[in-house]
Amino acid sequence: MAKKSALHIARGVDNAPFINPNWRGSQKSRVLDSSELVQKLLDGQTTALSQAITLIESTVSEDRALAQSVVKAVLPQTGGSFRIGISGVPGVGKSTFLEAYCSYLLEHDPNAKIAILAVDPSSEITKGSILGDKTRMETIGRSARVFIRPSASNGQLGGVGKSTFEAVALCEAAGFNYVFVETVGVGQSETVVSKLVDAFLFLAMPGTGDELQGIKKGIMEMADVIALNKCDAGRETIARQSALELRSALQLSSKLRNDWEPSVLEISAIEGRGMDDVWQALDRFYRHSTLKGWFKSHRLEQKEYWFNASLGQLLMDRLTAHEHWSEQHAAFLEKIGKDELTPFEASFALIENLLG
Amino acid sequence: MAKKSALHIARGVDNAPFINPNWRGSQKSRVLDSSELVQKLLDGQTTALSQAITLIESTVSEDRALAQSVVKAVLPQTGGSFRIGISGVPGVGKSTFLEAYCSYLLEHDPNAKIAILAVDPSSEITKGSILGDKTRMETIGRSARVFIRPSASNGQLGGVGKSTFEAVALCEAAGFNYVFVETVGVGQSETVVSKLVDAFLFLAMPGTGDELQGIKKGIMEMADVIALNKCDAGRETIARQSALELRSALQLSSKLRNDWEPSVLEISAIEGRGMDDVWQALDRFYRHSTLKGWFKSHRLEQKEYWFNASLGQLLMDRLTAHEHWSEQHAAFLEKIGKDELTPFEASFALIENLLG
Repeated sequence: MAKKSALHIARGVDNAPFINPNWRGSQKSRVLDSSELVQKLLDGQTTALSQAITLIESTVSEDRALAQSVVKAVLPQTGGSFRIGISGVPGVGKSTFLEAYCSYLLEHDPNAKIAILAVDPSSEITKGSILGDKTRMETIGRSARVFIRPSASNGQLGGVGKSTFEAVALCEAAGFNYVFVETVGVGQSETVVSKLVDAFLFLAMPGTGDELQGIKKGIMEMADVIALNKCDAGRETIARQSALELRSALQLSSKLRNDWEPSVLEISAIEGRGMDDVWQALDRFYRHSTLKGWFKSHRLEQKEYWFNASLGQLLMDRLTAHEHWSEQHAAFLEKIGKDELTPFEASFALIENLLG
Repeated sequence: MAKKSALHIARGVDNAPFINPNWRGSQKSRVLDSSELVQKLLDGQTTALSQAITLIESTVSEDRALAQSVVKAVLPQTGGSFRIGISGVPGVGKSTFLEAYCSYLLEHDPNAKIAILAVDPSSEITKGSILGDKTRMETIGRSARVFIRPSASNGQLGGVGKSTFEAVALCEAAGFNYVFVETVGVGQSETVVSKLVDAFLFLAMPGTGDELQGIKKGIMEMADVIALNKCDAGRETIARQSALELRSALQLSSKLRNDWEPSVLEISAIEGRGMDDVWQALDRFYRHSTLKGWFKSHRLEQKEYWFNASLGQLLMDRLTAHEHWSEQHAAFLEKIGKDELTPFEASFALIENLLG
């Protein structure tokens, strides 16, 4: 079954899967060539940005070649944003926070152009929930300076990471200077997002010691700033107590990265409180990391990560393209099923047989 | 720097990294050969089991060959346990639960021989926490019918998974008919453990709707039984409410696997309450899955998963062993760093250069 090109799909459907209100689906009648798309993208046209992201998410081979040429063409114009990861368990108020914080940014930084990419690594079953969330960011969603885009997941977290890595670059080429990569806090997704961003902001909620313990492990290494959301009026005592516990837990941890001790902030996105604190904490982190020189080295490490991940994928693609792959794979699977070989012995033998 | 063989290390140190009280470090003076180790293992000697697991966790090449021959020799004697995954956030009471539940099992099933393998995927920073936990399981730790073993992590989750897969087989060969694979609930580790076990028991705590929401996503697909721990005397109302919310959330999810709707139990490990409910739920799941035929097919799928994972690892090993790997890898990294190539283009070019 031939897959349809993403460009055709994007042009053919008025309500294409972008939430961006600037999307009009207006170019139904002709296929864009890549240089035209690149030019419009560099001009900051969000329709072109949407199309380009759809291209890089496409699994159709003609799209992939086109996508690569687009990404390569804009490469010199990328890198110019502050990339911020946002995570936290469902219910912690990520959408409300982004609404409040981006409103603050738009007001306080007249040059701010904000892209929000949502990575949803959730299960097959719960797929699509983030897409729904996005409709909640109504105020900022109406701004011409804001671009909101959920990522298709397909259950392949690595795949999401790869296309999001390129989507960040496309947003930067289109002139966005703040790129937020939002993900739901279920552990696995944060690892991927940490390979995409300069700073990681973790949202948590004030509560009992047990609950804090639950999030501690996962965030210790990744969070650069921690914001306790829902520190609403009347909840000062529990908020203060949770913040104290979290701070002492962070101090106990002996090996904090790069001499940076994550700030623990008490905020209330719904009441719009603490947004200046978040701004200052992120700004302080940005200065700290650029001054120390590891802003750049961190980005280089991330590129190396994606380089190596892509190598693994390509090697597997080559193996499965071998003319005897299917029969050999099936034969070894049978031996494994009969406990004649362990999966590890079988993998060794299969590679010997196919690659010598 | 030459690494020391795991067998030598294991024999040379009295407090080797096994918590099993049967461990005596008694065979200091000679090196076991694999047939002797296999025989002792099949005789159910836990010292031999500990040594064999140390072998499969070793990264020394002479150990790896020996480890493979041991695993292969016992392969026909494996598969004879009910493999149960246990997960939940830190603080939920996993050790207390295992203490209570295994005591129950020892008492109610005179044939029960229980192995507990702990997979700790935690960060470099918090590494070793599970090891500490194990000392809490004092009562069952003293039983000759119980074998407790933490897995070394090295930060490589895939590596932990591979050696734990083989450790499960070794435990079965040594006559253990219940194998618990315990992990801390931070998302990533559960995915690996789900590739190792027949049934997944998820521990949660009664609390507010928000907290339940937080765990829902991750467990929906994986949990076969959910036990709300800490439903202690006096907390009946909140326990009942949390259980109801969780049940309705589970019912809302449209695509439950294999017609199995996870039970939601209210238990208190510290008070020893609900252990019979857990037993019945797991037993019911076991019968359901064997009757439906997917107990076997599930195990076959898991073997296929490890087969494919191992293929990927071996391919990468071969690439990095190429004589021009280092120079080429460095050269492409430099191009990536200068934004002359994307990581994905570079990976393609590197493979073309090395493998043609």
